[in-house]
Parts: sequence; C-alpha cells; structure tokens
Amino acid sequence: MKTKFLLSAAAAAALPSMGLAQEAGVEAAAHTSYILTTLLFLIGGFLVFWMAAGFAMLEAGLVRSKNVAMQLTKNISLFSIAAIMYWAVGFGIMYPGEWLIEGWLGPFFAFTSLEPVGVAAADTALDYASVGSDFFFQLMFCATTASIVSGTLAERIKLWPFLAFVVVLTGFIYPIEASWQWGGGWLSEAGFSDFAGSTLVHAAGGFAALAGAIVLGPRIGKYKDGRTVPMPGSNLALATLGTFILWLGWFGFNGGSQLAMGTVGDVADVSRIFANTNMAAAAGAVVALILTQVMFGKADLTMVLNGALAGLVSITAEPLTPSLFQALIIGGIGGAIVVFTVPMLDKFQIDDVVGAIPVHLIAGLWGTFIVAWTNDGASFGTQIMGMAAIGAFVFVVSMVFFLILKATVGLRVSEEDEINGLDMAELGMEAYPEFSN
Amino acid sequence: MKTKFLLSAAAAAALPSMGLAQEAGVEAAAHTSYILTTLLFLIGGFLVFWMAAGFAMLEAGLVRSKNVAMQLTKNISLFSIAAIMYWAVGFGIMYPGEWLIEGWLGPFFAFTSLEPVGVAAADTALDYASVGSDFFFQLMFCATTASIVSGTLAERIKLWPFLAFVVVLTGFIYPIEASWQWGGGWLSEAGFSDFAGSTLVHAAGGFAALAGAIVLGPRIGKYKDGRTVPMPGSNLALATLGTFILWLGWFGFNGGSQLAMGTVGDVADVSRIFANTNMAAAAGAVVALILTQVMFGKADLTMVLNGALAGLVSITAEPLTPSLFQALIIGGIGGAIVVFTVPMLDKFQIDDVVGAIPVHLIAGLWGTFIVAWTNDGASFGTQIMGMAAIGAFVFVVSMVFFLILKATVGLRVSEEDEINGLDMAELGMEAYPEFSN
Amino acid sequence: MKTKFLLSAAAAAALPSMGLAQEAGVEAAAHTSYILTTLLFLIGGFLVFWMAAGFAMLEAGLVRSKNVAMQLTKNISLFSIAAIMYWAVGFGIMYPGEWLIEGWLGPFFAFTSLEPVGVAAADTALDYASVGSDFFFQLMFCATTASIVSGTLAERIKLWPFLAFVVVLTGFIYPIEASWQWGGGWLSEAGFSDFAGSTLVHAAGGFAALAGAIVLGPRIGKYKDGRTVPMPGSNLALATLGTFILWLGWFGFNGGSQLAMGTVGDVADVSRIFANTNMAAAAGAVVALILTQVMFGKADLTMVLNGALAGLVSITAEPLTPSLFQALIIGGIGGAIVVFTVPMLDKFQIDDVVGAIPVHLIAGLWGTFIVAWTNDGASFGTQIMGMAAIGAFVFVVSMVFFLILKATVGLRVSEEDEINGLDMAELGMEAYPEFSN
Repeated sequence: MKTKFLLSAAAAAALPSMGLAQEAGVEAAAHTSYILTTLLFLIGGFLVFWMAAGFAMLEAGLVRSKNVAMQLTKNISLFSIAAIMYWAVGFGIMYPGEWLIEGWLGPFFAFTSLEPVGVAAADTALDYASVGSDFFFQLMFCATTASIVSGTLAERIKLWPFLAFVVVLTGFIYPIEASWQWGGGWLSEAGFSDFAGSTLVHAAGGFAALAGAIVLGPRIGKYKDGRTVPMPGSNLALATLGTFILWLGWFGFNGGSQLAMGTVGDVADVSRIFANTNMAAAAGAVVALILTQVMFGKADLTMVLNGALAGLVSITAEPLTPSLFQALIIGGIGGAIVVFTVPMLDKFQIDDVVGAIPVHLIAGLWGTFIVAWTNDGASFGTQIMGMAAIGAFVFVVSMVFFLILKATVGLRVSEEDEINGLDMAELGMEAYPEFSN
Repeated sequence: MKTKFLLSAAAAAALPSMGLAQEAGVEAAAHTSYILTTLLFLIGGFLVFWMAAGFAMLEAGLVRSKNVAMQLTKNISLFSIAAIMYWAVGFGIMYPGEWLIEGWLGPFFAFTSLEPVGVAAADTALDYASVGSDFFFQLMFCATTASIVSGTLAERIKLWPFLAFVVVLTGFIYPIEASWQWGGGWLSEAGFSDFAGSTLVHAAGGFAALAGAIVLGPRIGKYKDGRTVPMPGSNLALATLGTFILWLGWFGFNGGSQLAMGTVGDVADVSRIFANTNMAAAAGAVVALILTQVMFGKADLTMVLNGALAGLVSITAEPLTPSLFQALIIGGIGGAIVVFTVPMLDKFQIDDVVGAIPVHLIAGLWGTFIVAWTNDGASFGTQIMGMAAIGAFVFVVSMVFFLILKATVGLRVSEEDEINGLDMAELGMEAYPEFSN
Repeated sequence: MKTKFLLSAAAAAALPSMGLAQEAGVEAAAHTSYILTTLLFLIGGFLVFWMAAGFAMLEAGLVRSKNVAMQLTKNISLFSIAAIMYWAVGFGIMYPGEWLIEGWLGPFFAFTSLEPVGVAAADTALDYASVGSDFFFQLMFCATTASIVSGTLAERIKLWPFLAFVVVLTGFIYPIEASWQWGGGWLSEAGFSDFAGSTLVHAAGGFAALAGAIVLGPRIGKYKDGRTVPMPGSNLALATLGTFILWLGWFGFNGGSQLAMGTVGDVADVSRIFANTNMAAAAGAVVALILTQVMFGKADLTMVLNGALAGLVSITAEPLTPSLFQALIIGGIGGAIVVFTVPMLDKFQIDDVVGAIPVHLIAGLWGTFIVAWTNDGASFGTQIMGMAAIGAFVFVVSMVFFLILKATVGLRVSEEDEINGLDMAELGMEAYPEFSN
C-alpha cells in the first residue's frame, strides 16, 4: 500500500483556469476515478472480510472435534471485537489527524466518523476514495492480524483472556505498528516497503502468535520423550474450504492495496497483482506437494494447504513488481519454507496448532525480505530493519501482555478441561454432537 | 431502497440545448453512471444470491443430522422456485406497468422481460440501471424472504406442502407487500421508511414463519412437562459458515439497496452502508457473547451467530443515516433481543428450530422502529403503522394458506417419520451416512 | 465469448482530427471503458476461481469418507498445476502471437507476460482490457476444465498419474481446442458459437473424464450381477455447498465472457446473462426435483444439485440471446438430461462418481446444440460439427494419454488400497479421523 495523500492544493487551484468544457471533463473524470477507487475498496473489503470465514474454517478443520465450537466462537468474536476496537481507537491511531472528518476525543478514543450522507463532490478529496470505504477496507486488515493468532493458540487458551488480547492487538498493537508504514510514519520515510502487509499484517500476527505460544506452552501430550505426537485435525474438508476462502479473499487483500483504480495504469496494476497473487499461491501449493512426496514418501494435504497460504503470504509484501515467473519463485520458496519450518518449530516444542507461525511469520519475513529483488526502490537492509522493528515491538508487547494475563486471570484452561475439550468446558456445547466418538 | 423513477422528461429535453462538447460530456457521464449503477446491482445481486447458500448452511448446521439432507433440499428448491415465480408473476406485481419493457399477460402472469441484446443507450433510461440487473437484484430479496421461513419449520414439515407455500410467498405475498413500499405504493406515500427490508423482507419472512410454526406445532419431544428440551444442531461449523456467508451477502443486500452508484455522493453512501452494516453485525455478536456469559455462565456460540444476524437485520431498515456509533447501538440491541426472545418463544411453545423469529421478525421490527431515531424523514408512528400493516397481511394470509394445506394435503410428516428423520422418510438418503450414530 | 481484437488502426487515426475538448472526452471515455472491462475480468475471474472451491466441495461431499482427503488434494493441486501450465504454455498456445506483450520462447513455452507496472494508457489497446486481467480470467476456464475430470475418476485413480494428465490437459489439450474458437481459429471462422464454453470447457472436460473412466474401469463392487450398487456420498451438506459455490461462480463464468463492460449495451448484456444464468440453474433444479419425485417416488437431493449444475452448463453456450423463458426451457431440459442419463451411464458400466459426464458432457452438448434456436448467427449443423471436432480431439488425445499412463506408471491404486481408501494409502491421513465408522 502506498501512503495516502490528499488532493494537492496545486491541482485544485489549476481547475478554474481551464475552459468550461474541459473543466467539466476533468471534473467528470475525477468523479469517475473517485467512484472506481471507492469501489475497489468496497470489493477488496468484502473479499478480505471473507478471509475471516476462511480462518474460521481452516482453524476449525485443523483442531480436534472437542475444540471446534470454541475455535468458531473465538473467530467470530475476534472479528467482531476488531470491528469495534478499530473504530473506537485503531483507525485514529493508524491514520492520525486529517483522516478523521469529525470527532477526535484524544489519541486513544478516535471514534472514526464517516462522510455525511450524500456528501457533495466539492466537500471531498476526489483523488482518493470515500472515508467509509477506506475504513471498511483497513478494518479488515486489522481483523486479519488477530485471526492469525487464534489458530496457533487453539485447544488450550481460555476464551476471555484470548479476547482480551484481541482488544489490545486490534485497538493498539496493530494500529501503532501499521501507522509506522501506512500511516506515513518513520518506516515509510526510511524506505521500508511492504505493499499489502507480509510484515505489517502477517508477520505481526505471527509474532503475536509466537509470543502467545511460548507463554502458553504446548498442548498436553503434544511432545512426549522428545517425540512429536500428531494430533490430526478433525475435518480436512473444512480446512480445505478455509484455504480456498483465504485464497479468494487474498485477491482483495493484495489487489485492493493498490489503493487506486481510476486510471488505466492503476487497473492494469491491480490485474498484475491478481495474476501474481494467484501464481504465488499455486507455486506454494505445488512445491509443498512435491516436497512432501519426495521427503516423506506421501503427499500431505495439510502441507499443501499451508503451502498455498505461505505462497500468498510471501507475495503480499510486493505483489506488483514481480513478473509471473518471479511470483512463482517467491511463492514456491514460501511453500518450501512451510515444509521445512513446521518440524523445526516442533523441535523447539513450540506448539502451533494450525501452522500459522511458518505460514504467516516465517513466509511473511521471506516475502518482505525478497521485495528488494524485484522492487528497485527497496533495499535488503531497510527491509531487514523494518521487519526487526515491527517484530521486536509486536513480540515484546504481546509477550508482556500475555504474561500479565497469565499472572492475573490465567491464560490456560485446566488440565481436565483441556483433555475433555474446551467446547464442553467453556461453552457447554459440542460442534458435532452426533458424530464424534 | 428508494422508489425507482424514470429519466425525467425535463432532463432529457435539456440535452439538445447544450453545446456539442458539453453535451457529449454529459452523455458520457450518464453512460458511466448507468454502467456503475448496473454494476452495483450485479455485484449486490450475486452477494445476496450467496445468502441462499448461507441460509442453507446455517439451517443444515442447526438441525439434527437425520434432517440435514431435507433441509438442504428445501433450501435449494425454495431458491429455485423463487427464481421462477418472481419472473412469472412477482416482479410484475411488485413494479407494475412501466417497468416491464415487453410482455404483460395480465396482473398475475407478467413474465418479466429483459432489454433486447445490446440495447442502444438511446432506448434506455440512463438515470437508473438495466432491467436485467434490477430484476436479478430484486429477485434475490424475494428468495431471501422464503429462506427465512424454512429454518423455523424445519424437522417436521413435509417437503411438497412447504414448497407450495413458497410458490405463494414468492409469487404473491412478498411481491404484494413489497410493492406497497418499493413499488411506489401506499406505504411509501405514507412516509414509511425501510431502506433494505428489515420489515419488507425479514419481518415478513418472520411473520410467515411464525404463522407456520403455530399451525405446525412443535417438534415431538421439544416441550416436556413445561420444560424445553434442547435439540442441539448437528454441525456448528456449518452454522458458523452460514453466518459468515450471510454477513458477507448482507453487504450486497444493504449496499445494493442504495440503488445508485453513479455519483460521488452515492458511492460514499454505499460505503457508509457497508461500514454501518459491518458494525451492527459485530455489535450484535459481541452483545450476545457477553450477555450469554453473564446470564448463563457460559458463552453460547449459536447465540453469538444469531446475535450477529440480528445485528444485521436491525440495521437493514436504515443502514445509511446512522453514525457508526448509532449502528453499534442499533445492532447491539438487536443482539440482546435474540438472547432475551429465544427463551420467550419457548415459553409460548413456539418451536423455531433455528431462531429465525427472534432474528428476522423481532430484530426486524426493532430495526424498522428505530429508523425514526436517525432518519429525520421518518416518524415512529408511521413506522409502527407500516410494520403492523405488513405484519397483519403476511401473517394472516400465511396462516390461512398453512391451514388450507393442513386441512387438505397435510403439512406435517407422520410421527414415525419425524422420529426416524425426514431424510430417510422423504428422500431415502442421509446427509452423513458414515458419521451419524 | 467473442474473439478478441485489438484497437483498430482506423479508430486510433481518427483521434487527432477532433477538437481538443472532444478528443479529451473521447479519450476519457476510452479510459473508463478499459477500466470497466478490466474490472469485469477481475470480478469474473475471482468468481470463476471460486468455482475451484465449488468443485472441491462438491466432489469431497460425493465421495466416501475414506477418499475425501485425496479428493481435496487432487482439487487444490489440479488448480495449482493449471495456474502454472496455463502461464507456461497454455495462454500462448490459445492466443498466439500478438497477445503476448513480451517473451515467446517458441510454440510450447510462451511464459505469459503482463503489462509493465503502471502502464501508460498510450501503450495500451484501450478498447479491450489489461492482459493481466484477461490472463487471470482465461486461466480460470482452463482450470475449470480440469476440475470436471477429477470427480468422475475419483476413489480409484492414483494421485500422480492423475496430476500428469492435468499437466497435459491444462497445458495443451484445452488450450489447443479452445484456440480453435476463442483464439480466432478455424471453428470461429466456420461460424461455431459457444459463448462461455458449454463445449470448449464443459463438454471438453466431460470427454476427457469419459476417456479416463473407460480406461480406469468402475470402482470395485460398483456393478454386481448387472445391478448398480449405490455408493452414497459422505457429506451432502458439503456437496450442496459446492453446488451453491459453483452457481455463484457461474455468474462470473458467463457474465465475464461478454468480454466488455464499457458501454450501456455491454453492461445490459452482462445483466441479461446474469438473469438467464440464474434462471437456467433454477429450472434445472426444479425439473430434477419434480422428475425424481414422479419417477422414483422420492425427491433426490443429489439429482437436484446436479440438475442445477446441468442447467448452468446448458445455458453456458449462449446465455445472452435467450429470453428468460427460453433460458428456463434450456436449463430445465438440462436438468431432465441428468435424471435420464445418470442411469444410462450405469447401464454401460461407466462409473462416474459425481455425475460429471451427464452434467458437463451431455448437458454441455445439449446447450451447444440449442444455441441455433435463439442465436440467428448459429446453425444446428455448424454446432454439431464443432462439438464433434472438439469431442473427437479431446476424447482421442485423452484416451491415448490415459492408456500410456496405464501401460507405464499405472493409473489405478491396488485393490487393497481402493478398499481401504485412498486417503490412508496415498496420503497417510484421514479427512474425518474422529467421525468415520
């Protein structure tokens, strides 16, 4: 995403000097451009909204059936909380000052406002899009960051402490670090490059998840005598559906991040982004498919799903400048990363239930790093600096907050509840009451 | 939704008096506006189509596994019947007269026709959208009304009598009451306000469902000695998926109801609507989550799902004028309504399998009532009058038709079939032949 | 789909002769038109992408639970392979020569390239759309062809030989036959008419599936003493979801095939296509519902699902010219075809696990044939000629390739693996480890 800017005064001043017909033509073109960019945000936004369903299905499919209802509850709740927190504080922190049309009760309660109903074109910065569409689109990125965390911490974290963390993550942690880049902050000034959020969204979510996984510890029985005990997901059809949903939503995630659709060049760029995004996902899936067959003697569906997702995460930092061949390489290496790092995490006994850390954190860092290959404006050094800064901030703040929660209200369900499943313990209901053995 | 209107003769007459270049510019802008509004209907329409899948998944997830295949059959069939009936009679009843470009065989068989292939701009009212897109969009609202009914009456109504009711509902009941408002009828003239159908679609569907539930009676074993026996849904992952699908589709439902996207003001309004719709859903979910935890000691996933849906229904009568904060309040109260009215219905032994009456009827009335808070053009009195008129009409006609069906072909499966499940009895197949115990 | 064409030199030459203001207006309109057509491809493309998820869910729902993970693996892998093969060779074969902006390493390795980043309007053929969006859209059609095959061959074909066939199908077979029509080849010159691919995509996929089914033979135990043994799908909720996904995606499949959205006439045509597509699907579902009730005494959900899909396939050859009533007839007959041809295939002991041959091949031929009814430019003779040519080519080449695979690496899993399920044998995992009996 580029940093946003307002209609330049110079351009506005130029308008009156033109002939009447020409002026009318320029104005009409500006209106059309505004409408089309707003439309890009609306379409992009509902596609990224759809990713919330994708995470819910992926995670519900990869946990055991006794924890499915809880995982679903967490996912729909975290999205809802993100929607409220990003309105109440997040958007105002991320885009301070001029981006709020009315209202601003101080740095922590911005209460985002929209344009008035039926806003006049004259009262609007026509070179961008409506605040409503922008807020809607940006909100979805905030929610995505939280969705990443829920999968890693599944099957053992309590509902309410998890949601308390979501409040902090979506209201403060994400908006602060995202403002460094997309709010026109110091990282964007330093030349850091992260088009749609390989680091700002995905690695950030992954760092928070990593902090949580370390504080929480692994599930009971996951690591026994140095061996990793497989705990297969209860519904791979659901997990595959979730992956397809995420893949679909990613066209909005990356394509909408062009932040403009009013010119031939912009819409051709959005097209490049769609094509590259799809290629990276495909390459990630194929590489994971081949690698698991070669390395383990059997293709592995969950690795293929995570490979596709890692391809998507990898291309997210720069979906525009690569050629299709470069997108294939970037996404394919993302797929390989998953196959190699999932066992590595287990070696450290970091229990990541759905593989979100390899997919979002490690592939996210890879994608951010490799931007310097295809984008002349980026340097490897600055990319590393940006990743380190965001990583350190998100990891440390998350860790502190998880430790506080652990020390006060407690973070983890009782051993008995974990063994019996969180669904009965925390919700008193089962996701599949008639199926499970 | 505003009442539709044709290109005013005055505006058309003004065109020739302008200079050539200016005229060309105005014409081009009119073309662009027509294309964009048509596109809004196409996108809105496919999103609302998607809600049919949402209802199918929600309802299939909330019934017991022995009735899942039947619930799926009902849902895909009712949508298909709606598509045919709305073409054959509904659209013509709802928008009488000038809205049909060709054909009109009398009041009851309108056989909606589309523009000719490659219609010339000169033959088209450029200030609106193509009839094809409008028909496509409006049809989805008609189908939605029927989807609401199927959930309430699940697990005991026979397939064919239910579908017979769908024929009447989608061909006659919905188009007649909707024409009172959106067809420019007496309710719209009286100043009633229902932007996207909290009453016209949702409460109407809910009133039909209520009539059906009363005539049908509760499922065997649902109420025993004054107690309500829980009959948990078979697949909460599916129910959650359905909720996310509905949430996504609602952006089209409410956003498309702006009925225009050709100006800066219109697209900014559509953006407002998207943002408010999302906020109301999030607030409904969060309120239901907190209330169930506080009231029952455990969070309740199905209440959270229905809370989100009730938030969506609540904001549907006026998604444009509220601020985000007002949307939060309107949707949040919608979520509370669900938590309080689900047990209330059980007290009256009205067996609503999926909670459609609280969600669509009661939250729909709430949303319609509260329009007068945020919309200066609406009054509480007129809102109540409109709700009462539509409620009385839909409830009475539905009740009569259900009673006729009950007295003639019978409405309910045999006791034995109900206990064994409708799937084997009516379809001879099971949805999950290898899972169910 | 019309054959594509470049900006005519005449139109380009005309520009400089106009007055400045007029010229600017014409240019702005050309930009807007280019953006809108590109947007049509992007939206159409992501909707057709979504069909990949639809096929995955439909097929996963219709196989037995022991083969679900394998079916999911095949579906996500075939899509990914198609994405790579269509880039590496397919697109270049299908649209030879001028359609590649850069790069062309010979007839078999085209390596599709996109426009440069931020392409200038002056460097672009403004009367069409961006190459990136076109490639993205066309790729999805190629992948769809492969998705059709995987369902028929389910529950017995080995993973890797199947994927080897996908490489050939998506890289060569589909692009070659599709180029005959959509690449401006001999079939389009002969006057063959196939708007969105009833034959080029659906029947082609069906012919490949038929060849595979003949070479593979039926599943163990499917035909016993001349009787057909039912092998019910494991998850009809998933199958229904898949059908709804496909129905949704089909709006992009058919609507996007208008290949233009920049004029009033074009967007009205896209609207006609949406309305007709929906009507044909609804009619197919209703006819299958009624016919199964009348013929077998019980409605049959899987027939209703396949009836809707057959309606969609039937209207795909010409979704534009029919009236809604003609669309109802065309789609309804498609639904009837499914009910009658599913048992017919079983009589020949051709084991088509999901019914893809009736739905995609037979209804596809029906839809292609009946184009001559509503489209004055088409003749029944030419339609038959085109179907025969494509059918013969795809069937023979597929058959040869399947026979080669069978004779070399083997096409079918061992008897033991087939009985135990492909999931454990080839993947070492189960889709529903806690549910299946």
